[in-house]
Amino acid sequence: MAQQSPVEFKEPRTERGRRTQRALLDAAAAEFGERGFHESSIVSITARAGVALGSFYTYFESKDALFRALVLDMSGRVRDHVAPVLSTKTNAMDAEQAGLQAFLEFAREHKEIYRIIDEAEFVAPDAWHLHYETTALRIVERMRKAAAKGEISASVDEVHGWAIMGMNVFLGLRYGVMSPNRSLADVARVANELIRHGLRSRDGNATG
Amino acid sequence: MAQQSPVEFKEPRTERGRRTQRALLDAAAAEFGERGFHESSIVSITARAGVALGSFYTYFESKDALFRALVLDMSGRVRDHVAPVLSTKTNAMDAEQAGLQAFLEFAREHKEIYRIIDEAEFVAPDAWHLHYETTALRIVERMRKAAAKGEISASVDEVHGWAIMGMNVFLGLRYGVMSPNRSLADVARVANELIRHGLRSRDGNATG
Repeated sequence: MAQQSPVEFKEPRTERGRRTQRALLDAAAAEFGERGFHESSIVSITARAGVALGSFYTYFESKDALFRALVLDMSGRVRDHVAPVLSTKTNAMDAEQAGLQAFLEFAREHKEIYRIIDEAEFVAPDAWHLHYETTALRIVERMRKAAAKGEISASVDEVHGWAIMGMNVFLGLRYGVMSPNRSLADVARVANELIRHGLRSRDGNATG
Repeated sequence: MAQQSPVEFKEPRTERGRRTQRALLDAAAAEFGERGFHESSIVSITARAGVALGSFYTYFESKDALFRALVLDMSGRVRDHVAPVLSTKTNAMDAEQAGLQAFLEFAREHKEIYRIIDEAEFVAPDAWHLHYETTALRIVERMRKAAAKGEISASVDEVHGWAIMGMNVFLGLRYGVMSPNRSLADVARVANELIRHGLRSRDGNATG
């Protein structure tokens, strides 16, 4: 699927360079999130970022490259937001519940992530695939570790990764993006209850 | 969210009119699925359908209206494909598993449905929302009926509808659209095993 390397931005060598690149990514998130890829322009992204138009190309080769970099940046930011929360729990299914709640909170705070990742299917399909494939794989790896410890059933399958990811993505759409009202702790609890028993270890060590 | 009525195509009065409208919708599915909304044209859709360009406007007001009608048509076709399968099972969770398998088979057979519904987020957001809201609601209604019969836990929640829909949508993407290899009966079995126990009635009447 991917013709180009999905990460094609230039790693800045100085702290100042890293700050400028960060400012461009944040401005791009706001711009692409509000206006979509096609209506967004490098001129207005650099203006939002307070960066001189001429220095844009020091950091990104094109609007396409910036968009692709942004998808992978957001994917990484979600992971970095959720990972520390996962590690506060010793039990795998408690970790999934806390991780889902953290993800839902991130989606409510950064609603633009949905429009950007969804538009990536059309604008940067390689980055879009990579985002979902790595996310599903990360879930499966967590499940395999939990299975190795006997916390959940040993028959962990790729299907679980895609199923749990799909559940989380649609709950983020419904309760993070579309509706600001419902308690996200409650959503995560109800959703976790749905899958917790399905993954319960049949060898004792019940988790639910 | 929706400014316009999502269904704005004209109901043909004759059988011949219905056949022509059906031919236009099928041609639109192929064209939008291959080329996307922006690259598709009424000229080429009517050519594919074997319909005179001039008669297009008898059936749809615009390319936008055709796209919106197509989203709702596809949403209805999925429902009509899955519904008879659901009704072959007496137990709610067996029905969900058979329904998921039927949906996965539909997605593998009609891969274009993903591109079209995903693009609807940007091109016909009212139809996109309606598709997901009605799909989630349909799942919740099935769960409520099963709960009323004591087959599953009585605490059915909207969260279940969005969680199960998200799971099904991503499994369709992974195993219907992306990979043609894995047995869809097996995918549906593993996915159903994940949720079957979570919805088990706590009052006896275990379903799994």
